[in-house]
Amino acid sequence: MSRVYLVGAGPGAADLLTVRAARLLAAADVVLHDALVSEDVLALAPQAVKIAVGKRACRPSTAQRFINKQIVDAARKYETVVRLKGGDPMLFGRADEEIVALEDAGIDFEIVPGITAAFAAASQLRTSLTRRGLSRSVAFVTPRVGVDESESQWSRVAAAADTTVLYMAGREIAAIAGELIAKGRDASTPLAAVESASLPEQRSWLGTLGTAAAVGAAIGDGPVLLIVGEVLRDCAVAEVVPELIAAARAA
Amino acid sequence: MSRVYLVGAGPGAADLLTVRAARLLAAADVVLHDALVSEDVLALAPQAVKIAVGKRACRPSTAQRFINKQIVDAARKYETVVRLKGGDPMLFGRADEEIVALEDAGIDFEIVPGITAAFAAASQLRTSLTRRGLSRSVAFVTPRVGVDESESQWSRVAAAADTTVLYMAGREIAAIAGELIAKGRDASTPLAAVESASLPEQRSWLGTLGTAAAVGAAIGDGPVLLIVGEVLRDCAVAEVVPELIAAARAA
Repeated sequence: MSRVYLVGAGPGAADLLTVRAARLLAAADVVLHDALVSEDVLALAPQAVKIAVGKRACRPSTAQRFINKQIVDAARKYETVVRLKGGDPMLFGRADEEIVALEDAGIDFEIVPGITAAFAAASQLRTSLTRRGLSRSVAFVTPRVGVDESESQWSRVAAAADTTVLYMAGREIAAIAGELIAKGRDASTPLAAVESASLPEQRSWLGTLGTAAAVGAAIGDGPVLLIVGEVLRDCAVAEVVPELIAAARAA
Repeated sequence: MSRVYLVGAGPGAADLLTVRAARLLAAADVVLHDALVSEDVLALAPQAVKIAVGKRACRPSTAQRFINKQIVDAARKYETVVRLKGGDPMLFGRADEEIVALEDAGIDFEIVPGITAAFAAASQLRTSLTRRGLSRSVAFVTPRVGVDESESQWSRVAAAADTTVLYMAGREIAAIAGELIAKGRDASTPLAAVESASLPEQRSWLGTLGTAAAVGAAIGDGPVLLIVGEVLRDCAVAEVVPELIAAARAA
């Protein structure tokens, strides 16, 4: 009987996988992995066949159906199948669609949680996402800018939470900050952009919602997570964007 | 030079620690741990002095100050100090207060993220917290029931998010559900209570906001996490509370 493990690969660093994930990788016959999973992580499964199942140049739904098919096909061919997903499988990972495919195919499976990028970023910034008297709610959202009001529920949640983490914020930092300000968040609220959290090339920048455009201009090409909230007010770890220092001097 | 590691112990299962956390435990001179950290996890540091620093029978702020002092004292006596905190240190863990104490004392430190209970619970329920077209926001909150409006910001966030995870919900499930309904959440919204996620004694129950009292009556004595949201609609893993089946039959 074959078994599929939907495993969280964590934020990037190979030693931020769980002990259970590392053990499963060492025992896997095949590993189907996202494009973002690093070589160091894949090196934990030297014996396994590796299949990259990152999104292709077609509509996301088509790409996901193809990934589902690849997982089911692998389970019919191999005994121990690891489906390795960036971060945690249950947060912005489309695990639900893979689970339905496995259930429909009658294939046994198990889920192994992983460290999501938000916690690696908070560690890197040395800033707790919650703080007594200041933050007792944290929202994780994927923003969609430029859509109509019925689709912008994300920004209401993002504006209401004490601390907000925005995944897949891409290059639209200024537009996102604009929507949060429009929903009532103060322009002086601190904002951090964290790139490649947990990896050697990690960097982070600190600004505010009102100066988000300058932060957006400073970031590089790696995956970026945004954190917004007063908990960042005293953060001393992130780089301060030069344009913001110039603006502060001019003020 | 001594160094303090603020390490996430994860949800409970010893193999859901990160590889980095397990390596640090094996090298630690002293481990200062929360009361909830399991014996199996502590067994990863057989060589280390163990100090339980759980909350005492006094005001939380006093207790936290005492914990901060214990960590600083340990750093002055030992070289490798692990401060082991349940889940992830940066979510509802008071890491910020320990960080300030370490900075004030001029002690070098590093933070190692951990799996927070929400992701262990989602794995256990086999239910993704996000889903295309259904949930693109997840809020983590600590509820406070029976406080005045200015303090109930948590319930606005909890009601607005597509999926809401409530930590430290304690025995007040019915009151929490009542506040979410009062803030506009439909009484038919699915609710799951997950007890001792990732541990052998783990259990979970499924109901709705409107039937939360019956769920509350069913749960045991372990730490409980609540998840609220439509993503749970088809969850087939949790136990359905007998009272709810009886009510459905009578309807």
